[in-house]
Amino acid sequence: MTTVPEFNRVAIIGVGLIGGSLARALRANHMARHIVGCGRKLEHLELARELGVVDSITTDPAVAVDGADMVLVAVPVGAMHAVLSAIRRALGANAIVTDAGSTKVSVINAARDALGDAMHQFVPGHPVAGTEQSGVAASFSELFQNRRVILTPTEQTNVQATECVRQMWQAVGAQVCEMAAEHHDEVLAATSHLPHLLAYTLVDSLARMQKRREIFEYAAGGFADFTRIASSSPEMWTDIVCANEPALLAVLDEYMQDLQGLRSAISDKNRDEIGKRFQRAKDARDNFTASSAERQKP
Amino acid sequence: MTTVPEFNRVAIIGVGLIGGSLARALRANHMARHIVGCGRKLEHLELARELGVVDSITTDPAVAVDGADMVLVAVPVGAMHAVLSAIRRALGANAIVTDAGSTKVSVINAARDALGDAMHQFVPGHPVAGTEQSGVAASFSELFQNRRVILTPTEQTNVQATECVRQMWQAVGAQVCEMAAEHHDEVLAATSHLPHLLAYTLVDSLARMQKRREIFEYAAGGFADFTRIASSSPEMWTDIVCANEPALLAVLDEYMQDLQGLRSAISDKNRDEIGKRFQRAKDARDNFTASSAERQKP
Repeated sequence: MTTVPEFNRVAIIGVGLIGGSLARALRANHMARHIVGCGRKLEHLELARELGVVDSITTDPAVAVDGADMVLVAVPVGAMHAVLSAIRRALGANAIVTDAGSTKVSVINAARDALGDAMHQFVPGHPVAGTEQSGVAASFSELFQNRRVILTPTEQTNVQATECVRQMWQAVGAQVCEMAAEHHDEVLAATSHLPHLLAYTLVDSLARMQKRREIFEYAAGGFADFTRIASSSPEMWTDIVCANEPALLAVLDEYMQDLQGLRSAISDKNRDEIGKRFQRAKDARDNFTASSAERQKP
Repeated sequence: MTTVPEFNRVAIIGVGLIGGSLARALRANHMARHIVGCGRKLEHLELARELGVVDSITTDPAVAVDGADMVLVAVPVGAMHAVLSAIRRALGANAIVTDAGSTKVSVINAARDALGDAMHQFVPGHPVAGTEQSGVAASFSELFQNRRVILTPTEQTNVQATECVRQMWQAVGAQVCEMAAEHHDEVLAATSHLPHLLAYTLVDSLARMQKRREIFEYAAGGFADFTRIASSSPEMWTDIVCANEPALLAVLDEYMQDLQGLRSAISDKNRDEIGKRFQRAKDARDNFTASSAERQKP
């Protein structure tokens, strides 16, 4: 049995793909009486209002959270500190604040500094969802269906606040789990941040090669899939990479060592070694596909 | 205006995703009176016959090509020499042989050695199509629609044979172009072979990390797309990597240097440099998407 929370006023700070999709999902599930959208650019906010994603708009975070019982901060992780500082004074005593940042240690550090004694109202979270698209125009209410949301509450976080955020995400279709922030950052460095680095670097490398236009001209479907994440927002990903530097460099170094190992196997014409590596990877990838499919069964 | 060739007997050696899909497409377009399927494993061939992909089957390549006017060799590139040697004596004087190998210099060298004075009947080709699936069960007649087929005829190749192979691929929906074999191998090293190495190595690296199950458990849609090609056939890809070693190592080295450059930018916290690289990549990727969409307009 799931409890579906109902909010009086929800403030969405950063009405992009994630913020816009949560707003749409809350509305679709009749979970919010009023949704206020907040962001830096007025024209984006006006679009969000025209699309019916939010009821009202403001560029001032303090105005947005005034009277809100639930606040989602869905801005690039590098902007978290400024936003949390801006809302601190206007935040009601019973308001719950959560975020959608892709790194958690850096966001928790920013929150500790910016929120001070309101830190117990903050539930650090990460909806592991999204596409290479960004902006409110790409948002849709089903984005979180069967997706993971990872909450990383600290020892200061109010237990009921965490429970409420959990219920909110579950009500819009997500599978919610909890883990330590440090662990989250390691896991995501491996499965999300590293792949983005590799894809960005590949496209950038090829773009610099002389035969550029031709190179891309003969690329097939596999290349399109492989490089899809290189169309993600550079601003957002620069923030993530910098915010998760230690965990990311650790997996990057391990990866580069493995790539160097494969390079040696190729130049040594060691077919057995190459084949073994490819087979292990295929087995792991096929297992991953099978268990994702299993998990997403209704 | 397109001329649609009609064949009396087509031999498909290697009835997997590519061979099976061409057989289906030829049948769908009434381009072959009889299609014989040939391969090493009888149970695969029987499946191909049951699925209606081929009319008759044999495990003997010489039997398959006897009386054939068109022969497609769609086996892993490492098996090309053996197959071409096996068909040499049974090949009719007017038969045309083409292949579907992902590398072209190595296949041409194999063909020169195996076919001898029948070399002029051989049209080296590469349908740049496919999925991470393999096997005849995954084949479908529309696989080549709007896909590139690259022909790399040598100075010995009969011009009419090349023209006939071009017409065959065009008739099943492909866009056919010609280039030098060396150039083909460089372009495909960059856009296909290198991405496969990167994806295989990423999945293998992560699979070895201790928290393996958990790591994959929190992976999202971007990871699934990025690693899709790591589910490709290890046998086929070991062959490709070994066959295209020089061109592949050249682009791999360039890539590793760029990755090292990005690593330095991250450890130096050089946000500008990171952001510039990501932005260049996004621009190139978005251009690629736009021009692929343009190309695939009917």
